[in-house]
Amino acid sequence: MNAPDSTWIRIGLSWHSNGQSVLSGPLLRLAKRLDELFLRLASKWQAEEFHFPTFVCASKLNQVDYFRAFPHLATFPVSLEQTPENIDEFVKGKVMDESGALLLTRTDPIKEILTPAACYPLYIHHQRSHFAAPGYFTVRNTCFRREMQYRPLVRQWAFNMREIVCMGTQDEVSNFLHTAQEQVTQLLGALKIPYQWQIATDPFFRPTQNPNYIMQRVSPVKQEAVYRDDVALGSVNLHRDHFGAEFALLRDGKPMNSGCVAFGLERWLYALIMEHGLNPEHWPDLDSLISNPSGHSK
Amino acid sequence: MNAPDSTWIRIGLSWHSNGQSVLSGPLLRLAKRLDELFLRLASKWQAEEFHFPTFVCASKLNQVDYFRAFPHLATFPVSLEQTPENIDEFVKGKVMDESGALLLTRTDPIKEILTPAACYPLYIHHQRSHFAAPGYFTVRNTCFRREMQYRPLVRQWAFNMREIVCMGTQDEVSNFLHTAQEQVTQLLGALKIPYQWQIATDPFFRPTQNPNYIMQRVSPVKQEAVYRDDVALGSVNLHRDHFGAEFALLRDGKPMNSGCVAFGLERWLYALIMEHGLNPEHWPDLDSLISNPSGHSK
Repeated sequence: MNAPDSTWIRIGLSWHSNGQSVLSGPLLRLAKRLDELFLRLASKWQAEEFHFPTFVCASKLNQVDYFRAFPHLATFPVSLEQTPENIDEFVKGKVMDESGALLLTRTDPIKEILTPAACYPLYIHHQRSHFAAPGYFTVRNTCFRREMQYRPLVRQWAFNMREIVCMGTQDEVSNFLHTAQEQVTQLLGALKIPYQWQIATDPFFRPTQNPNYIMQRVSPVKQEAVYRDDVALGSVNLHRDHFGAEFALLRDGKPMNSGCVAFGLERWLYALIMEHGLNPEHWPDLDSLISNPSGHSK
Repeated sequence: MNAPDSTWIRIGLSWHSNGQSVLSGPLLRLAKRLDELFLRLASKWQAEEFHFPTFVCASKLNQVDYFRAFPHLATFPVSLEQTPENIDEFVKGKVMDESGALLLTRTDPIKEILTPAACYPLYIHHQRSHFAAPGYFTVRNTCFRREMQYRPLVRQWAFNMREIVCMGTQDEVSNFLHTAQEQVTQLLGALKIPYQWQIATDPFFRPTQNPNYIMQRVSPVKQEAVYRDDVALGSVNLHRDHFGAEFALLRDGKPMNSGCVAFGLERWLYALIMEHGLNPEHWPDLDSLISNPSGHSK
């Protein structure tokens, strides 16, 4: 198997040089089945599903110092200042230069960010909540991370992330992450995808100058399931009380712990095709796994 | 029934003042069923499904003069210029002012737009294609339109649009639109949603100065299914050879016609709840319509 090239068009992959992929045909059907499989996994905890918007309020992410930690990854939605005079000025101009760059006139203040991960809106949504029991949630969203280099299905400006999140006591979150990691291990085994669990850190800007990066090195909170030493398919993340304290997610009056397991959908497609080839007849039967996700019947 | 307010939280609607809604619980389940219903309708034409990225290449939309026609609606993705010095300057500054507006330093050239409709990427994707038969397609995407005022589920900065598109001869497209309009009529009847078909125009900037608006007035190309004289739930659109000529979508060497039927998913949720109330037990049984979309068995 070669990495994605024009032969992948046959199974429904097209690639835009701006870091985004188009899915259709067998690959789109596989992507839908795969997400059903993750939802099936989420149902193990009766996780409540939320569908959040694309934009997150920037001041909320600023509360957790997102913009100093990951400024290079951020993408912001911008519109023209909504006065007729300003829009007239834009329309009467060239609109676009020879390189294809837009020549915008004055723009509105930027107060949003295109969500860089699926779970941030969940903590913000539940801010100032008192929980009587652990909360289990699942979210999927298109997520946006600006990168210097893109690679089809593996590193995209826009990609799909499914997450399962637990908010609870230290023990509840720890148990959740332990079980989630076991389940991902089983799932990758059933799909015959080779991988290794590796301790990882978040992609900080100037990492060695960031105390949070140093903390993650000293006291690991992130493990990734890495496919062939190359591509992280998913991660298991302990946030301790980082979000609980900042957004007042409370249990018995105290900030809760939280943790999540995250799946990069396009990356799972990549590993599945790299391992099982371009003929859909040779792909694993996800339907049987959806009804029996441990794969024991296979 | 009152318009969306805090009582809608019970069925899973939360509203962000930035023009976006959060769905969960019964309302999220209803949204998923509703899209299955539209997909069931698309299968009438064996429409091929595509999943396109969020961003569209701005120069492609400039080819159809999008930015002069709808500059006020456009939202653009912007990132910091990706040099360490520039990002350092941002990080060492205040990042955000007191109003919550980000204080960006230099930004990269803007060459993309957040897609304002689900079907534009489809014509671009098929540019310079020769068709031997009509093409039927279906697409769904989060679409983005900046507005002066937002209204929950009815007018949002980000919303979901499902479309079914036909590319073909004048007769094929005309037949498609005729059948599609009949099907939407039946569907709204089965769901007991009152509506009227109305001739409409696209939301041009300074419409009376735009020749395309004048053309649409003289020779209508758009009909909307309008709920209670207030909310357009869907539209049936004839593009003639507008996209066929611009993107070289060819049949027997000549530019094809195209047309689409478009559904605003959140608006259908709005009409369903306004008509049938906040108790999910009183909502129409979409599952039975999915297996029999004409609703004749009911």
